[in-house]
Amino acid sequence: MATRKSFSEDNCPVARSTELVGDRWSLLIVRDAFDGLKRFGEFQGSLGVAKNILSDRLRKLVEAEILKTQDATDGTAYLEYVLTVKGKSLFPVIVALRQWGERNLYNPKEKHSLLINKDTRESIPFMRPIDQAGNPILPESTEVSK
Amino acid sequence: MATRKSFSEDNCPVARSTELVGDRWSLLIVRDAFDGLKRFGEFQGSLGVAKNILSDRLRKLVEAEILKTQDATDGTAYLEYVLTVKGKSLFPVIVALRQWGERNLYNPKEKHSLLINKDTRESIPFMRPIDQAGNPILPESTEVSK
Repeated sequence: MATRKSFSEDNCPVARSTELVGDRWSLLIVRDAFDGLKRFGEFQGSLGVAKNILSDRLRKLVEAEILKTQDATDGTAYLEYVLTVKGKSLFPVIVALRQWGERNLYNPKEKHSLLINKDTRESIPFMRPIDQAGNPILPESTEVSK
Repeated sequence: MATRKSFSEDNCPVARSTELVGDRWSLLIVRDAFDGLKRFGEFQGSLGVAKNILSDRLRKLVEAEILKTQDATDGTAYLEYVLTVKGKSLFPVIVALRQWGERNLYNPKEKHSLLINKDTRESIPFMRPIDQAGNPILPESTEVSK
């Protein structure tokens, strides 16, 4: 069997999504963009990623219309990368990754960052699929209709 | 600056999560496991991925205690890979990727698979972060407390 290179024709939305954001650096760039980072040097400082890889991922995220470039807001010559509407709609993906990590990858004594509501300073509640009546949906009670 | 290799010491849960599931194949293996696929050949047939890559990802997912191995349920010699409790708790991550794809990566004439409730046959509603009162939380109204 030939190795699959592209999911652009795939009828599974998970596959198409992972084609665009299914790698660690892209997901962490999007996370940083939600945190307000905008410049190449800021992403590089946050991620500790090689410059050529960062360049490649930023370019692909712009091509995918997840990020867009704009002139620096302070009048300098720096290019800024900001989330588009499509990029901002990745918020549930980043929150889901965060909450899975919080619940599964830290021992009780370890500290981790928290996603909080700016106004109330409260943590964002656990997000999970719920049905029309507001009850949690377990994976066992779902199936994929192809 | 040295290239960062590991986020195992990172205080950001998103970073730790992406270290374990921040690649396309791992995410799609988890998706397939939710769909009931269990055997090496089944994953290979679904993903069209090179065998050495599939072996590597399955091994890492078992090491991360996202999948566990078990003897074949039909008495044959095949090894089966099934989600652990930790693995099943990735459900919101897969749902978020699916719903982002559904809303952003298909034109209106294109068909895609649907995640439905087995009993009601209805689509799973759009999942997003909500506050204690049940109101949607926008990324702009959140911040990360480090």
